[in-house]
Amino acid sequence: MNRKVVNASIITIGDELLIGQVVDTNSAYIAQQLNRIGIWVKRRVAVGDVKEDIRKALDEESKISNVIIMTGGLGPTADDITKPLLCEYFGGQMIVNEEVLNHVRYLFENVYRRPGAMLEVNLKQAEVPDVCTVLHNARGTAPGMWFETNSKVYISLPGVPHEMKGLMQEKVLPKLKDHFVVPAIVHQVIFTAGVGESMLADKIKDFEAALPAHIKLAYLPHYGMVRLRLTAIGDDKNKLEQELETQLKLLKPLIKDWYVIDEDLTMQQVVGKMLKERKQTASTAESCTGGYIAHLLTLDAGASSNYKGTVVCYDNQVKVDVLKVDKKVIDELGAVSEPVVVQMVKGAIDALKTDYAIATSGIMGPDGGSEKKPVGMVWVAVGNKERIVAKEFQFRFDRVRNIEMTAINALNMLRRFIVESD
Amino acid sequence: MNRKVVNASIITIGDELLIGQVVDTNSAYIAQQLNRIGIWVKRRVAVGDVKEDIRKALDEESKISNVIIMTGGLGPTADDITKPLLCEYFGGQMIVNEEVLNHVRYLFENVYRRPGAMLEVNLKQAEVPDVCTVLHNARGTAPGMWFETNSKVYISLPGVPHEMKGLMQEKVLPKLKDHFVVPAIVHQVIFTAGVGESMLADKIKDFEAALPAHIKLAYLPHYGMVRLRLTAIGDDKNKLEQELETQLKLLKPLIKDWYVIDEDLTMQQVVGKMLKERKQTASTAESCTGGYIAHLLTLDAGASSNYKGTVVCYDNQVKVDVLKVDKKVIDELGAVSEPVVVQMVKGAIDALKTDYAIATSGIMGPDGGSEKKPVGMVWVAVGNKERIVAKEFQFRFDRVRNIEMTAINALNMLRRFIVESD
Repeated sequence: MNRKVVNASIITIGDELLIGQVVDTNSAYIAQQLNRIGIWVKRRVAVGDVKEDIRKALDEESKISNVIIMTGGLGPTADDITKPLLCEYFGGQMIVNEEVLNHVRYLFENVYRRPGAMLEVNLKQAEVPDVCTVLHNARGTAPGMWFETNSKVYISLPGVPHEMKGLMQEKVLPKLKDHFVVPAIVHQVIFTAGVGESMLADKIKDFEAALPAHIKLAYLPHYGMVRLRLTAIGDDKNKLEQELETQLKLLKPLIKDWYVIDEDLTMQQVVGKMLKERKQTASTAESCTGGYIAHLLTLDAGASSNYKGTVVCYDNQVKVDVLKVDKKVIDELGAVSEPVVVQMVKGAIDALKTDYAIATSGIMGPDGGSEKKPVGMVWVAVGNKERIVAKEFQFRFDRVRNIEMTAINALNMLRRFIVESD
Repeated sequence: MNRKVVNASIITIGDELLIGQVVDTNSAYIAQQLNRIGIWVKRRVAVGDVKEDIRKALDEESKISNVIIMTGGLGPTADDITKPLLCEYFGGQMIVNEEVLNHVRYLFENVYRRPGAMLEVNLKQAEVPDVCTVLHNARGTAPGMWFETNSKVYISLPGVPHEMKGLMQEKVLPKLKDHFVVPAIVHQVIFTAGVGESMLADKIKDFEAALPAHIKLAYLPHYGMVRLRLTAIGDDKNKLEQELETQLKLLKPLIKDWYVIDEDLTMQQVVGKMLKERKQTASTAESCTGGYIAHLLTLDAGASSNYKGTVVCYDNQVKVDVLKVDKKVIDELGAVSEPVVVQMVKGAIDALKTDYAIATSGIMGPDGGSEKKPVGMVWVAVGNKERIVAKEFQFRFDRVRNIEMTAINALNMLRRFIVESD
């Protein structure tokens, strides 16, 4: 069997993308999902709600890809541009699809429970080109559409992320797997922390140079952590998996100082997994991170089960009242200091009754810095009842990045602390 | 003076965008910034680290845009693809730029404080095509590059967001404003809550139809809130501002039931601003939102000044111990119930000593639902010492969306409560 890589293009449609009002998260999701089933995204294009621009993008992407996925341009206020254009482009007629019409009515009556809010524009969403296969959108009123011409497939999906995701999982991916004979693609992620991208690349350059042509290595840096991703493409999935296992065995000793885990997990998922395995609990006491670590720990149902709670003590009085930090110490040394974060860890363990706690206090900017304590200076402490370790960080740049850097580094400190406590 | 809209294209370079490992936030930022100075983004394209694909994108975008901004492909492990290609494309020679070289050395010695970690690949970042103007990157080792051919401008920026943003603000935008005679663009945002996109569109369809051709209306829905954005393009900025003011006066009475504010603020910024104006404080008691409301309130330095703290009581014991919720009530009615969120508001006001508090408790999924309390069921309460209001929500879909929907709706409940208390 001749398995060839199938190329795909993603076209996102909507003026909101061109004025920068909306960050396009859909493309990344679609790319990830296609990648998993062996379809390679060659290009991504964003165009406005302009017929000629959409047509031009369709023409161009048809030249390089066999799968063209469009998102957006299907909402009730989208001015009827995308759907009629697709109808014209594929030479069809607009018809009312009864199933979609019933579904729109059902949503307004039984799910939104606002039948009075159903308007002409909503009913119009049931109109589709007669040359497409309708992909039922269980989560919303705009249906997905599947067009085929020659050997190419064109798919139009609504831009609302959870509707698009549902359609991808339930309709698009199964149909694509049926339609194309794709190669096997196997990924192996290795998560490292505490080393920069160029240093890591230098350390493993011989390993990288010796990789066979069908195995590629990607560096995916994120907040001072670097994920390495090995991707193997071929015919035989089992063989590829064995090859990646062999490569992983070669790679691991080279990076042992920075190795975290060889799964594609986030830092908070790694910490959550470690707590679960040890049947232990954690809490956080957050000043400068303002609840962001708690948010990360509760983002996944799985990671959150051994997390009990947080005191966000943005105000010093809360540090004193709830976490029992000594007011004198705050007055003398300031809230951004080692003794304060150490006391915050103790206070969180006592108040929230957990095995471990993380505490953060820092100056996130843009204001509030001084010569001694500049913007980006952060104290983090982690510990249990027996032992607490604290560390000073000096981040730079902007507030949002400082919050994120502090959170990820604090979680990494707890991870190391747990490993060392074993 | 003949002011014409200048078209721009954004090309993002990097395999990580095509495998979906990274969400492209750079394009949205660049688009926003260009838009503000009267440059219209016509297309955005993402391509991999492949010479031919980058060249093809440059050729194509040159046909439709006068400004082409590229990001990415300049990192130390980027395999030397983008920079040599640009050198070849614009017919130059690679030379070492002494200023960049000194800056790389300076960063490693004085900022990163790891001179030993400086590698050949880092020093190589000082090599640039001799046909470009170097844009000094104060925040990192990869310089920005500015190329001019005929009437077109090509700009290459590193993909690291804070480096790209710094270069845009300090170098690219001032140079573009010098280079092009751009039209005046004025935006007016009106923030609404409590109404869907199609209902809103129906309500103001006559207003929209009567808008002059040079004023456009965009609907920007986000978590059940809809931002309306009026954009006027012309020669005379003052005149455009007056025109938008007139339109705003026509629009406001039509949408008075849902009107929040006519500034481009987030919901948490609106709440932060209201607290500041009233010199009042707020706290949150978060179960199901796990600290996300606290995170939103502390994301901007400005919004956070009247926020004091949060108790994230992911575990019921924390509700009892720290927020003094009656254990019997939890046992009888469950944590996701009206009495519990009402007691959480009281507990937060007492423990954190604030004027207002928000409390959330719900079932975020994917597991933990029952017939009586399905996934997506959430109780929210807001109040002060005198009065507390609670509301049940029924969200659907996925966990992350449920957390975000709860947070934004809880903040909107507090906003309404404050308005009603005035």
